[in-house]
Amino acid sequence: MRSPGLLRWAIPVAFLSAAACASRGTAATEPAAPAPAAAEPAASVQPPAEAVRASERVTLTGTELGTMWTFENPPLDYWQSRYGFRPTAEWLEHVRLSSVRYGDSCSASFVSSAGLVMTNHHCARECIEANSSARDYVVEGFYAPTRKEELLCPGLFLDQLVEIQDVSQRVQGAAPSAASATQIAEAQQAEQAEIQQACEAASGLSCQVVSLFHGGQFKLYKYQRYEPVKLVFAPELQAGFFGGDPDNFTYPRYDLDVSFVRAYDADGTPARTPHYFQWDASGADENELVFITGNPGGTSRLVTVSQLMYELRLRHPYTVRLLELEVGILKRIAQQGPEAEKQVRDRLFSVENALKAYRGQLGGLRDTLLLGRKIRWEREFRQKVEADAARRAQYADAWDRMAEIQAEKLQVAAHRNLNDFNFRLAAPHLTLAGMLVRYIRETAKPEAERLERYRGENLQQIEQTLNGPTRVNPDFSALLLEAQLQLAREFLPPDAPMVREAFHAGESAADAAHRLVTETRVDEVDSRRALMRAGPAALDTASDLLVRLARVMDGAFREAERRLNDLEARQSVQDERLAQALFAVFGTQLPPDATFTLRISDGVVRRYPYNGTFAPPVTTFHGMYARSAEFNNEMPWTLPRSFAERRSAVALTTPLNFVTTNDITGGNSGSPLIDREARVIGVAFDSNIEGLPNEFLFSTEAARAVGVHAAGITEALRNVYRADALLKELVGEEPKKK
Amino acid sequence: MRSPGLLRWAIPVAFLSAAACASRGTAATEPAAPAPAAAEPAASVQPPAEAVRASERVTLTGTELGTMWTFENPPLDYWQSRYGFRPTAEWLEHVRLSSVRYGDSCSASFVSSAGLVMTNHHCARECIEANSSARDYVVEGFYAPTRKEELLCPGLFLDQLVEIQDVSQRVQGAAPSAASATQIAEAQQAEQAEIQQACEAASGLSCQVVSLFHGGQFKLYKYQRYEPVKLVFAPELQAGFFGGDPDNFTYPRYDLDVSFVRAYDADGTPARTPHYFQWDASGADENELVFITGNPGGTSRLVTVSQLMYELRLRHPYTVRLLELEVGILKRIAQQGPEAEKQVRDRLFSVENALKAYRGQLGGLRDTLLLGRKIRWEREFRQKVEADAARRAQYADAWDRMAEIQAEKLQVAAHRNLNDFNFRLAAPHLTLAGMLVRYIRETAKPEAERLERYRGENLQQIEQTLNGPTRVNPDFSALLLEAQLQLAREFLPPDAPMVREAFHAGESAADAAHRLVTETRVDEVDSRRALMRAGPAALDTASDLLVRLARVMDGAFREAERRLNDLEARQSVQDERLAQALFAVFGTQLPPDATFTLRISDGVVRRYPYNGTFAPPVTTFHGMYARSAEFNNEMPWTLPRSFAERRSAVALTTPLNFVTTNDITGGNSGSPLIDREARVIGVAFDSNIEGLPNEFLFSTEAARAVGVHAAGITEALRNVYRADALLKELVGEEPKKK
Repeated sequence: MRSPGLLRWAIPVAFLSAAACASRGTAATEPAAPAPAAAEPAASVQPPAEAVRASERVTLTGTELGTMWTFENPPLDYWQSRYGFRPTAEWLEHVRLSSVRYGDSCSASFVSSAGLVMTNHHCARECIEANSSARDYVVEGFYAPTRKEELLCPGLFLDQLVEIQDVSQRVQGAAPSAASATQIAEAQQAEQAEIQQACEAASGLSCQVVSLFHGGQFKLYKYQRYEPVKLVFAPELQAGFFGGDPDNFTYPRYDLDVSFVRAYDADGTPARTPHYFQWDASGADENELVFITGNPGGTSRLVTVSQLMYELRLRHPYTVRLLELEVGILKRIAQQGPEAEKQVRDRLFSVENALKAYRGQLGGLRDTLLLGRKIRWEREFRQKVEADAARRAQYADAWDRMAEIQAEKLQVAAHRNLNDFNFRLAAPHLTLAGMLVRYIRETAKPEAERLERYRGENLQQIEQTLNGPTRVNPDFSALLLEAQLQLAREFLPPDAPMVREAFHAGESAADAAHRLVTETRVDEVDSRRALMRAGPAALDTASDLLVRLARVMDGAFREAERRLNDLEARQSVQDERLAQALFAVFGTQLPPDATFTLRISDGVVRRYPYNGTFAPPVTTFHGMYARSAEFNNEMPWTLPRSFAERRSAVALTTPLNFVTTNDITGGNSGSPLIDREARVIGVAFDSNIEGLPNEFLFSTEAARAVGVHAAGITEALRNVYRADALLKELVGEEPKKK
Repeated sequence: MRSPGLLRWAIPVAFLSAAACASRGTAATEPAAPAPAAAEPAASVQPPAEAVRASERVTLTGTELGTMWTFENPPLDYWQSRYGFRPTAEWLEHVRLSSVRYGDSCSASFVSSAGLVMTNHHCARECIEANSSARDYVVEGFYAPTRKEELLCPGLFLDQLVEIQDVSQRVQGAAPSAASATQIAEAQQAEQAEIQQACEAASGLSCQVVSLFHGGQFKLYKYQRYEPVKLVFAPELQAGFFGGDPDNFTYPRYDLDVSFVRAYDADGTPARTPHYFQWDASGADENELVFITGNPGGTSRLVTVSQLMYELRLRHPYTVRLLELEVGILKRIAQQGPEAEKQVRDRLFSVENALKAYRGQLGGLRDTLLLGRKIRWEREFRQKVEADAARRAQYADAWDRMAEIQAEKLQVAAHRNLNDFNFRLAAPHLTLAGMLVRYIRETAKPEAERLERYRGENLQQIEQTLNGPTRVNPDFSALLLEAQLQLAREFLPPDAPMVREAFHAGESAADAAHRLVTETRVDEVDSRRALMRAGPAALDTASDLLVRLARVMDGAFREAERRLNDLEARQSVQDERLAQALFAVFGTQLPPDATFTLRISDGVVRRYPYNGTFAPPVTTFHGMYARSAEFNNEMPWTLPRSFAERRSAVALTTPLNFVTTNDITGGNSGSPLIDREARVIGVAFDSNIEGLPNEFLFSTEAARAVGVHAAGITEALRNVYRADALLKELVGEEPKKK
């Protein structure tokens, strides 16, 4: 499965692993241990008493697991009873074939029979940037009135889901029943690969086996892939990301986050796409049924309460602090000048986005009522398991086993993360010291017993580095090391070996980092060579303080990593048992967790209670002009140039953005919003901040999907950008003859 | 001191006492007891552990007690160091004499030399309504282009503070030092009355002795009273209260909450007012210093942590529930038809306003960080007292004594409130039963030992009622009794005599109320006469269930009232000791709690963090048109008729509302916002919802005063209302000759 890369929210694992100078993907995805502060209660995976009390009072809505339905199992009866709407098989097929997955990160839809595709501006941003060397289309926006003027999006493809086959029996029966857990997993993976290859060879399609319900079902998804793809229209960044990071994830919003691309056949002609969504600029009234079709990247709604408590007690607070420190570092770098600012701009955008998402999720975890609802859901699920003797024997202890594992992870995870030389914000000096320590230790062993990176060609690279000149910036190193030490102080107990080795009594993280980086000689090749010559025994008496720190960290890391890997393996077993229990109790009546594959979610346009009053169901162009004026036209609320110039031509009360109760998350960016006639009424681009806790439990009280309204897109194309040809293709009129 | 009556927020005591059919002013101001629910922890006045932990981390700002400075003791050094601004004595006098108190509820300011006064629309509403019998100026708005057309505001007066004298020594020395607490209080009150009378006789001014710092200081305030007062301009209610109850207390906001009246001399000529604020439509930039002068009604910033815990555990939750039930009742009445709706409209507005204010304050009490800051403030204050032997001996135990009193109040208050026949939502049938029970019991005693209402003329009235025909609506009675029983079930222990008497096992409050009201004969005069003849002994065996309930309640109320009165007296003693301790430690460097007398608060125009982004420093006319369109022009966001008709003439980016960090509360409504040149740049009309917890502790992180911007008033007068003559008087130009 491709993992979504360029998500507006729900920080992708791939991003978090892209650490400053290393590539192991664990830095922020598996954080930290019990807080050492004396005033805090001992960390535990028991939920807080208030949440347990709240669970006695809450009512479940039946949609706690959300509404991200699969096309192979649409909830026809539920839709019928709730909305009086029962789509036909033709309707469902048409909608499925009109929807496409956009690259490996977003969603999109066909909006003309000639391959025209609508997605978000932030999804097309990579393509716009790739074409911005001569003219800066990011800043200026782009419009191709004719096909000749369209610009190639390098590497971009669009996947249309054309067929779905159930392969559960083949995959699940791949291993003999007496096989061990590991053997089963390996056999199943081999079977999936074989299915995919056979499918691709036979059909010429792009094939993928999808595991739903954490292994409860396996489906073969076959995609028609469209490439090349060309850029047709993009507004200025200032229109497509109006309000910038402050307004990101919020609503009321005034954001023209839309772009158009076109799918081409290999022969250079626009793809013929008979299945496409008709344009409906009139939108939907409040409380009217709307669907979103798209590819949500991932959700964590099947996790247990004890897993949530691990998130609450450790992973989320740790990640928030880590990202806060990173934002601080990036901003200090940006202050060094325009060139430095440009270098870190994209990363700063990504990290600020992730920080906001994590903070929002942490807020949800701290919400007594939300946690209470989760507790109640789990209690009712467990009761259903307990009520049946066979199920009780098979699954009833899974929750307790899971809780034990989480409690152990609380003790171990921060040690693993913070002793890691591949720490997300690793200081170059410490990376060097770590490489040196490991080299000395590993090369003293027979090759077969060494770590992977200390064998063969890898080893030669390391030797080159250690024996050559190294240029490492001490100021930058001190800045990064300070962050790592600060986190160690906050998330490791005071007697952790690394903490004792790094700090003098009463010293701040900044002072310790500065001292260590200034005094070490690890950046001098002669010093490194002397240590390599002295061998492993001499390490224990080395006088270089950073080498001593690295030595302690190396030991602590290996121990913590071993324990954590063991815990992860044990957790996988319980994960699977719980998924089976869910499947046994509920069958397919609940939607599976998101898997970055096509889903259809139902909802309605609806205002919500907010800040003591109501957030409106729609916003208008008035609002963009208002918000800009309110902040004196300063960034990031500066009026986009086109909007400023064409102000008098704009119908100010035209809807611009709107909110619905549909269930979306990262990966859904660019999803079409459609009505019951399968007409497109907007494009989804964000969740409001109240929707971030939906990661763990779905609710529609204040959580909303935010979209650009079709009327707003029409008005902008007509009166702001005067993109007549595009507009005519959209609304279905013939282009005027010239 | 007059108590503010028509406040937009901070529910006035006078309002809460205006119960359905009774007049005792204690119903909602002194609520209820420990929650009986088994799942809840025992109520206590100890702050929650999280708040205590939070107190270790918070930093105090030095303005926890706010910035409501008195004119006799302006913090000149603080202003100098903070803003580089040191007003002269002339500046202060000019500002004081340009400010006026508006009736007994609001604030206002002179804005021309001919007695023109600016205040809020909601302050002038009473006057507008009084003049709306022929034409409905509430709905239409009102404008008098000439003085002849101005309309008299019946009973309205304006008070200008012309002189302040310190009378602390006279009042505090009024009693011999050996006198008891009661003797001292009586002697001081007599002295104050004498001072006021002598002052009024000698000066012809309106005089008032004001107790600051809860008796730490006494000041004689002398007012020039202006009356009659006439109405000059009021916008439509839909402009002056745009967004209605939903948007009340919120921001961003688009509310033209402004009116103009004129002060007249007794001879019918407009008052000459050489001290008035110059008009400055350019307003203030963000972060620019602004002052608000006005009459804040009351704050509770000097209360102890244990008093706050009483508010958190009982008074606020009780009041919120009480007001929720009342809103429900009023809405059910309103649904009966247009006439019923009109009868309850004003009360519904008041109760919804109060409910929103109480909910906002309760939110603050539940905010761990806010409570932590209060805990820290108290700890530091106590340490300063402990640090000095004399102070320690005199005051150190006051906090513990206060905590004991609060813990007892938690046990008693709900019994007093819910057994009260003068309960805020008293059912007429129960009122009758109560009157009957008390009449029988009291008239059995010698007259001198009876309750006040059961003597002399009062007794005759009661006898008339009991012996005459009574018309009580059983449906209405059942509705009210249900609310009282519902609260009893929620706030009294299950073994409270009233609860045991009122409910059958497993019965709902609605069913119990219906049963009691249906079965009782207390509404029949023969039945009452029979009971009166039978005398007190027969009460114990009465078969009428409502009479039996009233009998039990009467006993419980007398006991609880006795205990609570005793607790209140003991609390007064500690209140005064704590005020003395504060005064001993800090002198007059801290501002006293608000007393509905003239204060001057400093602040700056400033955006604030909100909903994940920022709320802007100003809003614009765009926003009103936007919000109306967003909600499809439905109520309460329907566009005011003038704004709809004159849409094309309005400069949409003109500022309409704005926010500042000034310290205001109920009573400040209508206060001028002025800059350092003493030019008026707006009129304050509300607090944002984040500002409601400022009742207990002042903070400027997100709490803001909300004002109408002078530019917005100018634009509205010029282009929406075309009120040329008024505009010219404001901006200082000569009216055009015709």
